[in-house]
Amino acid sequence: MTAMTDELRLSETFTALASSTRRAILARLAEGAATVNELAEPFEMTLPSISKHIKVLERAGLVVRGQRAQYRPCALNPAPLEEVSTWAERYRPVWEARFDRMDDYLKQLRPRRRAGNGDD
Amino acid sequence: MTAMTDELRLSETFTALASSTRRAILARLAEGAATVNELAEPFEMTLPSISKHIKVLERAGLVVRGQRAQYRPCALNPAPLEEVSTWAERYRPVWEARFDRMDDYLKQLRPRRRAGNGDD
Repeated sequence: MTAMTDELRLSETFTALASSTRRAILARLAEGAATVNELAEPFEMTLPSISKHIKVLERAGLVVRGQRAQYRPCALNPAPLEEVSTWAERYRPVWEARFDRMDDYLKQLRPRRRAGNGDD
Repeated sequence: MTAMTDELRLSETFTALASSTRRAILARLAEGAATVNELAEPFEMTLPSISKHIKVLERAGLVVRGQRAQYRPCALNPAPLEEVSTWAERYRPVWEARFDRMDDYLKQLRPRRRAGNGDD
């Protein structure tokens, strides 16, 4: 049950991250909290459009909103990003093994080349 | 231009990862290459359905297909997962800062409690 919830949450996080605009909003919020108006400026987007992106980030738990009336500043919640990192890191042995194999391959190539040069 | 391509590729990777079935397929392929039939079995899915998921993973470069006629085994390409890890790791200072703040907070609580106990 909890495993299922974890899976659903991870899917929601990945869905939220599948937009360069939303990733740019997160990068901006990593520097500090900002209002929707402040977030809209650098992206040259309309307020409704940026609000829609923020809602997706909020649903995924990547953004939390303050309770101050009028402003309700947005802040980054990094917890789901740590989950993404932990999830991806499970595959580190696979990509490192690939580099090891590439390394083995290059080592195999070198003596052959040298032998080839000797025959010239 | 390259930065834009990187952003588009990352979006495609996150889209592909936003499905627990596709993540389970990757986990299976991390153990070794498999045919579509082999992949379909544990998931109790129809072949067209699993093929659709594999196509999404292929488009994102997470799965590569062999050229052996009939079988065309699927293999995991871990490179996009390394990119996801690198991307998420940029936020490590944010989540670690949060834990530091939590740590500071707990440190602030402890002496208070002790003082409280002394007053009892």
